[in-house]
Amino acid sequence: MGNGIRVGVLGSNGKVGKAIVEGVEASADTDFTVGVDKGDALTDFVDSKTSVVVDFTHPDVVMDNLKFLIENGIHAVVGTTGFTQERLDTVRGWLDANPGVGVLIAPNFAIGAVLSMHFAQQAARFFESAEVVELHHPHKADAPSGTAGRTAQLIADARAEAGLGASPDATSTGLKGARGADVDGVRVHSVRLAGLVAHQEVLFGTQGETLTIRHDSMDRNSFVPGVLLGVREIAGRPGLTVGLESFMDL
Amino acid sequence: MGNGIRVGVLGSNGKVGKAIVEGVEASADTDFTVGVDKGDALTDFVDSKTSVVVDFTHPDVVMDNLKFLIENGIHAVVGTTGFTQERLDTVRGWLDANPGVGVLIAPNFAIGAVLSMHFAQQAARFFESAEVVELHHPHKADAPSGTAGRTAQLIADARAEAGLGASPDATSTGLKGARGADVDGVRVHSVRLAGLVAHQEVLFGTQGETLTIRHDSMDRNSFVPGVLLGVREIAGRPGLTVGLESFMDL
Amino acid sequence: MGNGIRVGVLGSNGKVGKAIVEGVEASADTDFTVGVDKGDALTDFVDSKTSVVVDFTHPDVVMDNLKFLIENGIHAVVGTTGFTQERLDTVRGWLDANPGVGVLIAPNFAIGAVLSMHFAQQAARFFESAEVVELHHPHKADAPSGTAGRTAQLIADARAEAGLGASPDATSTGLKGARGADVDGVRVHSVRLAGLVAHQEVLFGTQGETLTIRHDSMDRNSFVPGVLLGVREIAGRPGLTVGLESFMDL
Amino acid sequence: MGNGIRVGVLGSNGKVGKAIVEGVEASADTDFTVGVDKGDALTDFVDSKTSVVVDFTHPDVVMDNLKFLIENGIHAVVGTTGFTQERLDTVRGWLDANPGVGVLIAPNFAIGAVLSMHFAQQAARFFESAEVVELHHPHKADAPSGTAGRTAQLIADARAEAGLGASPDATSTGLKGARGADVDGVRVHSVRLAGLVAHQEVLFGTQGETLTIRHDSMDRNSFVPGVLLGVREIAGRPGLTVGLESFMDL
Repeated sequence: MGNGIRVGVLGSNGKVGKAIVEGVEASADTDFTVGVDKGDALTDFVDSKTSVVVDFTHPDVVMDNLKFLIENGIHAVVGTTGFTQERLDTVRGWLDANPGVGVLIAPNFAIGAVLSMHFAQQAARFFESAEVVELHHPHKADAPSGTAGRTAQLIADARAEAGLGASPDATSTGLKGARGADVDGVRVHSVRLAGLVAHQEVLFGTQGETLTIRHDSMDRNSFVPGVLLGVREIAGRPGLTVGLESFMDL
Repeated sequence: MGNGIRVGVLGSNGKVGKAIVEGVEASADTDFTVGVDKGDALTDFVDSKTSVVVDFTHPDVVMDNLKFLIENGIHAVVGTTGFTQERLDTVRGWLDANPGVGVLIAPNFAIGAVLSMHFAQQAARFFESAEVVELHHPHKADAPSGTAGRTAQLIADARAEAGLGASPDATSTGLKGARGADVDGVRVHSVRLAGLVAHQEVLFGTQGETLTIRHDSMDRNSFVPGVLLGVREIAGRPGLTVGLESFMDL
Repeated sequence: MGNGIRVGVLGSNGKVGKAIVEGVEASADTDFTVGVDKGDALTDFVDSKTSVVVDFTHPDVVMDNLKFLIENGIHAVVGTTGFTQERLDTVRGWLDANPGVGVLIAPNFAIGAVLSMHFAQQAARFFESAEVVELHHPHKADAPSGTAGRTAQLIADARAEAGLGASPDATSTGLKGARGADVDGVRVHSVRLAGLVAHQEVLFGTQGETLTIRHDSMDRNSFVPGVLLGVREIAGRPGLTVGLESFMDL
Repeated sequence: MGNGIRVGVLGSNGKVGKAIVEGVEASADTDFTVGVDKGDALTDFVDSKTSVVVDFTHPDVVMDNLKFLIENGIHAVVGTTGFTQERLDTVRGWLDANPGVGVLIAPNFAIGAVLSMHFAQQAARFFESAEVVELHHPHKADAPSGTAGRTAQLIADARAEAGLGASPDATSTGLKGARGADVDGVRVHSVRLAGLVAHQEVLFGTQGETLTIRHDSMDRNSFVPGVLLGVREIAGRPGLTVGLESFMDL
């Protein structure tokens, strides 16, 4: 038994869960305690003196999981989706009754994606022009991607707050769709290409210069470093935190 | 007086003409003889023993220019636009009567752009997916650019000839325009950004790999090396040639 | 049983072999017949009326494999390494005795890599400057990569043949190594970064414009489309062919 | 006479000065008052009720310029180089005696470059690997560029502060220089290519993902937007400020 943070995993038999177990085992400052999946008892976490549990499960079970963990003084790092405002309030209530326990719920654990959005937001007000190009494998159903849509909206909001008008654009003739989708004034382009995984470029321009922030996800395990970052920080951040960026002190 | 190719310039007072004069003077194997613009006599080229004349003028005057040059045994490298099939036939007629004289007419002298299109055409049949992203300054009126449209069409033709079907694309929801313009099945995206000049990326993808051919024009003088290439080759290529690629032995 | 090309795989239990079996099964115009690995009999290919065998095995066994296949009238597509000039001559001898049989031996089956090198070679003589940047995962032992070294050498040779001198470079002060490795006058830079797989950029520049050819291998199965291309062509190309580019009619 | 900020320019006959005058004239919220160059009197700024003066002159004259401006209650935005700690202290002394006057001295006014460095510094501690690739025209004397060297040092410092060790790198064989220059553990690569202006990529990588921050200067006037940003802010920031980033509230 090591001296690292004692980490358990919920949903440990799934693809994502297995990648997290591997990540916890490979990291020098974390020790894997136990994996729990359908049929296993949550009490395994208590018996194994687990300090932090990572939950990538399902909206149907995540609330029960969190209730148990919080009441047993175990911190949680949660990538499961489906958290409404009401659900978040319920979690906050449980945490109020158990001060000292921390829960992190985040929609995106890819550190590079979180930083991209943060930088895009910071840079937006300094440039005349901003556009987003996202590039994905061709099996993706939505265009633009959720991340690209959110990034464009963050840029549009930052531009509006800074009093910037529309990006200059003299286009007067051409083909339908060439200038991309319009997200509140920010153009978004979606490339679909065999061989790609998940990639995004945010382009800013002003007189004589451009700034490009590019994020490339090369495989589906790119959430692991972000999960580990959450695991390392959660004990020092009691209460509910939404979004990984809150732990990044940007 | 040097020993280089003796080169004159038509339209020598314009922005483009001046850049060509500079290029001819800076090149070790070419000597600038004389510039001719409105009000000057075409006979200056004869008097100065000019071997090759570069014409970036206007559709209204270029035919008279070419008639004079060809009849006086002077080769021509022409970037002026507006050449219909009929005009090309007229030029061919003049050249038939003056064997030994060469005329090159090209819509694009940027070597990188010509190579991009050629490589795109060669690569097209080996990839499941192909898309074009072009990026220009925001004062551009057309979207997509003419070059992007032509490139996409060349790719579409090469795919059709190779019996390839449509690129895979599972997009079923999203925002209008996100997937770009459709040029015969090849998607084209137009970014307009302050600070940019003229840029184009052709993206190809298949299982596990992508190939990207990117051309960047950083300033408006990027046609000069292509013009000089034409100047060096024209004496050895009698008759009419359309398109710089014919001189590049690709 | 389908009507596709009947394809067998040697080394079918290895990682690479499994990916090839999957590729053959997924492709509409090929049918997988049988896999042979240690302990299996080569005669399985004859019994299953296999037309083409793909061999990604080991230098120790590949020659015996080829002798058997050629003598039994079965075409071969070979990614196994270690082919000396002497070995190639031996294979040619066997093929002379069995006209009609085709063998393709190639060091690289990634179509994008093969095209990159071909395009780099074609473009080299038109640009003042050329450099190569390759980017790989940090577990790679050699820097630069073999592909980058070969690409730089092809560029250097093409420049020499065209009578081009050294690329311009006014560097007079700085830090050791900043300008990369020197491959016969062409600079090569090696980036090593966690998260990357295998990537390469060839950069060409002249007055006012640059051309970049970029190849990205996103996973280790990027050789599959090239192997399938070889499988489809081999029956029509009797004798020995070295290098996939020979089948690409570039 | 408009209602914008009243801006004068020192060194107004130089290339840089002319670009600044144009920028001030083109901007809706600034009015150009007067340009002063060799032989002109600094009192012109007082006579023209100038509020802010932009100084891109020479280390030999900039201190006299600043003394005059500060004593006359005129704010200054300074791109002139050569400010030692001693000189900065002298300027601080003058400003102490003239409260309400603001002076901004910055080594780099390209907003994209300033943001790049800031983002690189913020991102550094979240990634296993970091490298810098800078790409410039071939007339540049130093390799790596000053900006690339500074960026690499900022990354190295941020990694050290976060307790990160060396980036992983298994390179054991290869060519000298391939892995670039070593700036305190961060590798820096310098590409020199005809056609380029000034470009930089900062690459970060961790498991399965990379983040790239790219800055492109397409022409030499890319400092103008940053100068205008300084002009707009300086009246509200009395005392001495060093570095444009201080005005950007990042």
